[in-house]
Amino acid sequence: MRLLIVNPNISEDVTRLIEAEARRTAAVSTDIFMATASFGVAYIETRFEALIAAYAVACAAGERAGSFDAMVVAAFGDPGLAGLKEVLDVPVIGMTEAALMSACMLGTRFSIVAISSRITAWYRETVVANGLESRLASIRHLSSPLRGVGSVQQDHADELLALCRRVVLEDGADVIILAGAPLAGLARAVADHLPVPVVDGVSSAVRHAESLVTLGVRPAVLGSFCAPPVKSRAALPASIDSLLMRAQARKP
Amino acid sequence: MRLLIVNPNISEDVTRLIEAEARRTAAVSTDIFMATASFGVAYIETRFEALIAAYAVACAAGERAGSFDAMVVAAFGDPGLAGLKEVLDVPVIGMTEAALMSACMLGTRFSIVAISSRITAWYRETVVANGLESRLASIRHLSSPLRGVGSVQQDHADELLALCRRVVLEDGADVIILAGAPLAGLARAVADHLPVPVVDGVSSAVRHAESLVTLGVRPAVLGSFCAPPVKSRAALPASIDSLLMRAQARKP
Amino acid sequence: MRLLIVNPNISEDVTRLIEAEARRTAAVSTDIFMATASFGVAYIETRFEALIAAYAVACAAGERAGSFDAMVVAAFGDPGLAGLKEVLDVPVIGMTEAALMSACMLGTRFSIVAISSRITAWYRETVVANGLESRLASIRHLSSPLRGVGSVQQDHADELLALCRRVVLEDGADVIILAGAPLAGLARAVADHLPVPVVDGVSSAVRHAESLVTLGVRPAVLGSFCAPPVKSRAALPASIDSLLMRAQARKP
Amino acid sequence: MRLLIVNPNISEDVTRLIEAEARRTAAVSTDIFMATASFGVAYIETRFEALIAAYAVACAAGERAGSFDAMVVAAFGDPGLAGLKEVLDVPVIGMTEAALMSACMLGTRFSIVAISSRITAWYRETVVANGLESRLASIRHLSSPLRGVGSVQQDHADELLALCRRVVLEDGADVIILAGAPLAGLARAVADHLPVPVVDGVSSAVRHAESLVTLGVRPAVLGSFCAPPVKSRAALPASIDSLLMRAQARKP
Amino acid sequence: MRLLIVNPNISEDVTRLIEAEARRTAAVSTDIFMATASFGVAYIETRFEALIAAYAVACAAGERAGSFDAMVVAAFGDPGLAGLKEVLDVPVIGMTEAALMSACMLGTRFSIVAISSRITAWYRETVVANGLESRLASIRHLSSPLRGVGSVQQDHADELLALCRRVVLEDGADVIILAGAPLAGLARAVADHLPVPVVDGVSSAVRHAESLVTLGVRPAVLGSFCAPPVKSRAALPASIDSLLMRAQARKP
Amino acid sequence: MRLLIVNPNISEDVTRLIEAEARRTAAVSTDIFMATASFGVAYIETRFEALIAAYAVACAAGERAGSFDAMVVAAFGDPGLAGLKEVLDVPVIGMTEAALMSACMLGTRFSIVAISSRITAWYRETVVANGLESRLASIRHLSSPLRGVGSVQQDHADELLALCRRVVLEDGADVIILAGAPLAGLARAVADHLPVPVVDGVSSAVRHAESLVTLGVRPAVLGSFCAPPVKSRAALPASIDSLLMRAQARKP
Repeated sequence: MRLLIVNPNISEDVTRLIEAEARRTAAVSTDIFMATASFGVAYIETRFEALIAAYAVACAAGERAGSFDAMVVAAFGDPGLAGLKEVLDVPVIGMTEAALMSACMLGTRFSIVAISSRITAWYRETVVANGLESRLASIRHLSSPLRGVGSVQQDHADELLALCRRVVLEDGADVIILAGAPLAGLARAVADHLPVPVVDGVSSAVRHAESLVTLGVRPAVLGSFCAPPVKSRAALPASIDSLLMRAQARKP
Repeated sequence: MRLLIVNPNISEDVTRLIEAEARRTAAVSTDIFMATASFGVAYIETRFEALIAAYAVACAAGERAGSFDAMVVAAFGDPGLAGLKEVLDVPVIGMTEAALMSACMLGTRFSIVAISSRITAWYRETVVANGLESRLASIRHLSSPLRGVGSVQQDHADELLALCRRVVLEDGADVIILAGAPLAGLARAVADHLPVPVVDGVSSAVRHAESLVTLGVRPAVLGSFCAPPVKSRAALPASIDSLLMRAQARKP
Repeated sequence: MRLLIVNPNISEDVTRLIEAEARRTAAVSTDIFMATASFGVAYIETRFEALIAAYAVACAAGERAGSFDAMVVAAFGDPGLAGLKEVLDVPVIGMTEAALMSACMLGTRFSIVAISSRITAWYRETVVANGLESRLASIRHLSSPLRGVGSVQQDHADELLALCRRVVLEDGADVIILAGAPLAGLARAVADHLPVPVVDGVSSAVRHAESLVTLGVRPAVLGSFCAPPVKSRAALPASIDSLLMRAQARKP
Repeated sequence: MRLLIVNPNISEDVTRLIEAEARRTAAVSTDIFMATASFGVAYIETRFEALIAAYAVACAAGERAGSFDAMVVAAFGDPGLAGLKEVLDVPVIGMTEAALMSACMLGTRFSIVAISSRITAWYRETVVANGLESRLASIRHLSSPLRGVGSVQQDHADELLALCRRVVLEDGADVIILAGAPLAGLARAVADHLPVPVVDGVSSAVRHAESLVTLGVRPAVLGSFCAPPVKSRAALPASIDSLLMRAQARKP
Repeated sequence: MRLLIVNPNISEDVTRLIEAEARRTAAVSTDIFMATASFGVAYIETRFEALIAAYAVACAAGERAGSFDAMVVAAFGDPGLAGLKEVLDVPVIGMTEAALMSACMLGTRFSIVAISSRITAWYRETVVANGLESRLASIRHLSSPLRGVGSVQQDHADELLALCRRVVLEDGADVIILAGAPLAGLARAVADHLPVPVVDGVSSAVRHAESLVTLGVRPAVLGSFCAPPVKSRAALPASIDSLLMRAQARKP
Repeated sequence: MRLLIVNPNISEDVTRLIEAEARRTAAVSTDIFMATASFGVAYIETRFEALIAAYAVACAAGERAGSFDAMVVAAFGDPGLAGLKEVLDVPVIGMTEAALMSACMLGTRFSIVAISSRITAWYRETVVANGLESRLASIRHLSSPLRGVGSVQQDHADELLALCRRVVLEDGADVIILAGAPLAGLARAVADHLPVPVVDGVSSAVRHAESLVTLGVRPAVLGSFCAPPVKSRAALPASIDSLLMRAQARKP
């Protein structure tokens, strides 16, 4: 299968982190194609940045429409995810939803460890949008500013581990989610040092995408996730336009 | 005060409906400026169309940044609303949130009457995002396809009234919300024929926007609605860019 | 329009605080009429005191029935509010619901700053009754006893500001509600010193009452907020009796 | 023990129904004292009638303060209940909460059968105030107007049984609550004809009141149910005044 | 009436604690029969131990089927409770549900004081299964390991009292539940030293069981708590088999 | 990897259905080992049958402890699942949780199609225990009695398809879950005839189990899913005993 992974941030170094973890996880038969948002910000922390990223991810998907069998939106917060599920006829998985689903199979309550204070409101709202707030034990975050988004794992190694231990001992977490694409792959590195299962969004998303393809699920032709109705539209970039046209073409 | 009202749909006839109702409601001292999305679809019914509209609304706001004292996002579903609240230092009100807040002061439970089946999932998710699902009695919708988005009120007058009566008699609604910009102004026209209060999103939004300006609320400089942090960004249109730069400039 | 504002407490000095803030907010065309509960306690903190106040507010409204176009119940906790909405054919707004609705348009999560520990349970239950507990970040309160209910703002100025900062920094509030009639007007005074929007219940209620009159909403003649059914009754004070009789007279 | 049962309605015939069921249930050692609201309406269906009833129940309790070991508020909807729990140092049980607690021990989900359409909104809000909405399967109600509140059981026998069967077969109820003092004793009469357990509010309240006395629970001297703080008050009837004074006297 | 009380733990000393408190509470006319799980663990703290205990309680009930008029499952967490309600035609009450129902009649929010950290997740999930998480103020627990399950009350007397005070002062509890069979009877001993009502699961369960028998509730013959359908089965112990056969025999 | 799949029912024909679907799904490198409950009932529909099945599944797991790398509990309702996650150091996946997680990645709201009316209460409670009730659109079920549990798919083919269409058209489901081991494999057969994605519990569970092994998640040594504490126990079957001993041996 061909798996498209889109980094909704413009940071190429984060794309490389995502790709490395994705390749460690993917099946031999999975061909991975990486894309980086062609416009936007270095890393998304706020609702406005997510608004931009949602559009950038849609453009990236539209440019590659028809060339992949599943897609991963590789930023925590899942910018654009629900909309893309309507227009694409292949599985689209978000990093947050993937991590949440993995976590729910590993324990009753999970905590999220995040890279900044500002990002936590957006994460909380994403958990709520997934209907899983009753299973959220806590969200904790790094307290010092980032030196660079590509080196967070190295720069803040100790504090990240300390946060992980606190969510277990103080907040009652059964599972830890290391959140945000800049932390991609960290779960694998620190799993042996932590007392509960640790979930990584990228590898979870890769596996869930492969699963949905393997399970052979069909796209919706009715209900709230089928293609948007045909109607007049104007001034859309070709990438977005093609997503709508392709979606409407698959209508029964 | 200067009030910018943005129609996130590309339909100019809907913009005129919105403007008419806004002018019937606004204070004499309120100067109304209308804008219509420069790209997008005729009327938003789906999550993907809302994703496009959010970006279009942000562009429209960015092009006019600094020229208004409050802003209304005039599509039910409030595309882009939360993000715009972060970057603008003036009140930004969505049509849905405005209608919900008015409705909550008029009864315990409200129902929403909508123009299509497809649109209801997006409305439900917007109510949930506002945390008000426990007060939602029902969402009912027109069953026949629209002839044109600008003439819904005339084309479906009887069915709209019938739906309004059913939500009271069968679903237990204390208040009715006539949802969607194409229904702007209808509440005023039918109020005398309905047994419970009827709420219109446009007029509610205009009043709430005026109220927040009158009350003199200050923009956030901390918390999850203050300006997004300064960080590298790339290839953004000037309108979006200016929103980010202006927002960051007001940081304390 | 004629706006009746009833202070459900017996404290005339608090009535004056309420009136001052109401006059600073109201439109020129709004005539404000103040009333103070003719029986009850100095300030309501408990469910039993609210039970008394609800009856006192109903008596005050009944004595003035027919002489006003909208009414505000000016105690946080909204004693008697839902009942009065049934019997009056004009908008009735509570200070809590007004503040909650304003706050919801200014951020996702709000905190309440209150004047005593005892009062917090009643406030929490009022938020729950409004269905908004998922947006409540916290309730914090003054720790020292009040010297007098009319001078809380002066006596506890520093602690009030400190509480406001803590709900932002420690509890994640996007908006602060300064709760309780004794704090009427404080939001206006401290807004410049606080990092997020601050909401005042009195001014919010005045504006929302004016809005509902402006929007021309009709009273319910069906559903759970129409007039109570005609039935035998006994030994009611004339004020209460007149509310029931007037309400039933408007039945269709 | 001495058990005071207050009918918050003014209808003496309903008081007799309540008393008959209470005497069928009570222990030999329980002395039952009945009281009927000295002012109010024939039967409470609305929030405003409940507001009046709450005050009437408080007056009735205050007139008898010190003469009983437990008290039952014998109207579904529990008017005044939470307030009375603050001022009385003996257990106070409401008919709704009693029925809900019994029902919860007999099944996962319960339905409520009520005597009128209008009364259902108040019942629903009472269930929500008890935090038990997730266990409410449905509320169904008589469709024809009542001939008299004292003869509902005879006048509507067949429809009441039919409603009971529908909540089991159509709504998935494990338990039925026959709600409202006018139905006191009906559960006992029809239990053999119904396929799931049937709960009566009066008998449940009598038993729970006896249980709390038997269990020897102490009144609160801290927290949100201890006596209201001492403060200036004015123009209260002697009955209300005595409740406050007695409560404050028990403060530690 | 004949009341069977089953200790789902294998600890005979805890059975004696339960029996002592049950006898202090029960009516003179109640004959108490104690049973101790014939297999299992010393005290249940985890979901797996509860799985074992559920089966052990079912065996104990099956061995005595037909010889009792009501049954109490005397471990906090209520192992096997919902299943036993299906197969027995007499009231079956769990210690947790009994304590929760008592607590709900004594205040709005309750806290649970428990004997170990590990046990708290199971308790929380039991409260959630009862639909009462919105009324749970907190769960606090002993911090030091138990010397013996039969002497917890003596060994940890001071810490237990300190925890009780903290849930009132820090967590806002209106009522305290002393949870777990090893604490049976403690509420009675410490009630005078605590500022809010204290609830004991065993005595609550005994009273509620007596109440349901007194109220004469009939077993379900329809709905989700009637007897399991007849179907082929294999290799079940005689005790379990007899429960199923007896239950199916009562089908209408 | 070695995957143990336990059918908690005693029906060998259902075991064969499960095995067939598991083999259609599993990776080539996955060795599947099937087990059928050695005691219990033909198919679980009630809480009491689930209580028996939980114990039977634990026995089956204990007899095979150490011989598998992941385990699937292959009955909808997940009997024993949470307990087994505590004692096993390999991933344990339930058929319900697996289907729920797959469904959540394919749409916002899902419906469950079940084989009998009686089974629906248990399913609903399982969804609630997973915290996902807000995403449950409906549960619908076959109306006629089963001829045999192994031939449900053939005997009721038309009604099953009709139920699937109704949950989309009438209940607003985005995704359909075909629930219950007797329907294993049906989703694959009917997917082309249904307008929204259809989820099968067995194949979902197999994929999720493989994923968790691939992702290399470590077992908990702290928190509520680590091994139960060491304590005295008695009269347990060897299979259960070995689970406890092995679990405690892995404590850090």
